[in-house]
Amino acid sequence: MTDADPLAVLVRGIRAGDRRLLARAITLVESSQAGDAAEAREVLKRLGPGSDNGIRIGVTGAPGAGKSTLIDVLGRHATERGKRVAVLAVDPSSVASGGSVLGDKTRMVRLATLPDTFIRPSPTRGVLGGTTRHTREAITLCEAAGYDLIFVETVGVGQSEQAVASLVDSVLLVVLADAGDELSAIKRGLSEVTDIVVLNKADGERRARAELRAAELRTAARVGRAGRDTWQPPVVLTSALEESGIEELWAALAAHREHLEGSGRLRALRQDQRRAALSAALDAGLKDAFSRDQAVAAAYAAVEQHVLSGALSPNAGAERLLELFLDRARSG
Amino acid sequence: MTDADPLAVLVRGIRAGDRRLLARAITLVESSQAGDAAEAREVLKRLGPGSDNGIRIGVTGAPGAGKSTLIDVLGRHATERGKRVAVLAVDPSSVASGGSVLGDKTRMVRLATLPDTFIRPSPTRGVLGGTTRHTREAITLCEAAGYDLIFVETVGVGQSEQAVASLVDSVLLVVLADAGDELSAIKRGLSEVTDIVVLNKADGERRARAELRAAELRTAARVGRAGRDTWQPPVVLTSALEESGIEELWAALAAHREHLEGSGRLRALRQDQRRAALSAALDAGLKDAFSRDQAVAAAYAAVEQHVLSGALSPNAGAERLLELFLDRARSG
Repeated sequence: MTDADPLAVLVRGIRAGDRRLLARAITLVESSQAGDAAEAREVLKRLGPGSDNGIRIGVTGAPGAGKSTLIDVLGRHATERGKRVAVLAVDPSSVASGGSVLGDKTRMVRLATLPDTFIRPSPTRGVLGGTTRHTREAITLCEAAGYDLIFVETVGVGQSEQAVASLVDSVLLVVLADAGDELSAIKRGLSEVTDIVVLNKADGERRARAELRAAELRTAARVGRAGRDTWQPPVVLTSALEESGIEELWAALAAHREHLEGSGRLRALRQDQRRAALSAALDAGLKDAFSRDQAVAAAYAAVEQHVLSGALSPNAGAERLLELFLDRARSG
Repeated sequence: MTDADPLAVLVRGIRAGDRRLLARAITLVESSQAGDAAEAREVLKRLGPGSDNGIRIGVTGAPGAGKSTLIDVLGRHATERGKRVAVLAVDPSSVASGGSVLGDKTRMVRLATLPDTFIRPSPTRGVLGGTTRHTREAITLCEAAGYDLIFVETVGVGQSEQAVASLVDSVLLVVLADAGDELSAIKRGLSEVTDIVVLNKADGERRARAELRAAELRTAARVGRAGRDTWQPPVVLTSALEESGIEELWAALAAHREHLEGSGRLRALRQDQRRAALSAALDAGLKDAFSRDQAVAAAYAAVEQHVLSGALSPNAGAERLLELFLDRARSG
């Protein structure tokens, strides 16, 4: 490879922590174009298996819960403690509307101005599976660029929260301290993937009510997790406005990390994450080989037309195309 | 094919409307075993493209909203009007817990005793994509067996609701008439995929409050859909207990059907559904061919071990296995 090889430049730039080249690599990873996807795979391959030593924190919650502002404060807290902080903001929650509900990331402006931080909004419109794979690869790229604390911000509870949980080590659920609406959803979340509950905007006159809710949620947390794990999700009251509770949240994250390491759970998590990444890479590679096949490409439109018109069943159409693909591969 | 061919027996049985054989075919479709999957594909292929003439209704909502009881009443209403009714109850909402939140289907006992009905609970533990494909194929099997009204019952709002919406023609969102908690979720749902909102258990002392909520939701429905579609999601008050509102709900479904047919939207929907089915069948077929490949099978465990230990990146591991697969196919 010569110096003129653009991928070599990219790989070297990422390793050197160049934020602009890191951003470009993530764009390749997220691209739906076949050529970009092949380049992204090559970059990831050249970067190697990676250390997997980053601390990966999922931040989830309803729109308006204050996730971005909280990450802004918490991220600055972390950089003051010598961490290099990356934020990946993904939105796999809205398929039908096709839009992003992330809003702008201006609430992270203070974090964004620091030298050791990288912030990446990824308003995606694709399916959940694709988002998950792209985010997983973006995490790998950030770690290769030397970021050791990666926040993955996502909207919503349920399927998207669970998808993010499969990528990270700790899941923070951020809830408005005075939002009465979502209590049942929080309790459901507690029994699933949440590791730490944050009651945010617990300031001023909301403080007293927040403390009552915290007590209720602590009870629910004990019940929800019973028998699954020895970890008891702590409930932390924060205010990004007053910058209160950030020390406590940082301590809760450290405690969860210690729990993961001490119990051997982190090692198991990393293996699960790598197994999922292998499986996702295989799926993507298979689809890619199929879509680049000449015989398939030549026949696809006609077969699809027959399926759309109802003349051919989807399964029969798929079988016809798969035979072309496997024969084609066989004959050369 | 001789009469002893078990698949021929299955295909003939399904066409004749045999509920036991229909259930067996759905079990094949849902099976994670490679042999079963191949048989399922063969059955679907032999059944042909199908008429796609069934009316497919998604019924979604939180646990406890009364979906099953409502389907029980509505389904009987439909059979009295000459419809053959199938109910597929799927639960793609819970990945982490691994459990089903469907509960038992005893609330559909009255419907289950009728001769022209078929009820199938499918508590799945897999990923969303698999569930969607299985449900799509189960719908096809039910239609091949002569069921012309197919209810797909699912839990939750968000990703799972959207997955079901891609399979059906009309989406009913069932909400407790007096559940204050979920209003924000309902309003979100309105702007996405919901076609008809049902305020259920609107009986006794809950009736007055339900009417107030209905008025509020009707306003939200007008706002949520503005510009997307000419359909205004109606809000219907029902009580399965008092069996009230069922006529209105039936009329709302008929009106939505008329809207779909009149606007050309049904034809577009069917094409979308077929395109998605082709894509899903291709994905499944590719994975199946890969997993049945001898060279891949021989190397898989060692490559996976290298990936899990961190010695090999997931992308490099995937590339190695894909090369084996494509070479293997090439050499015959």
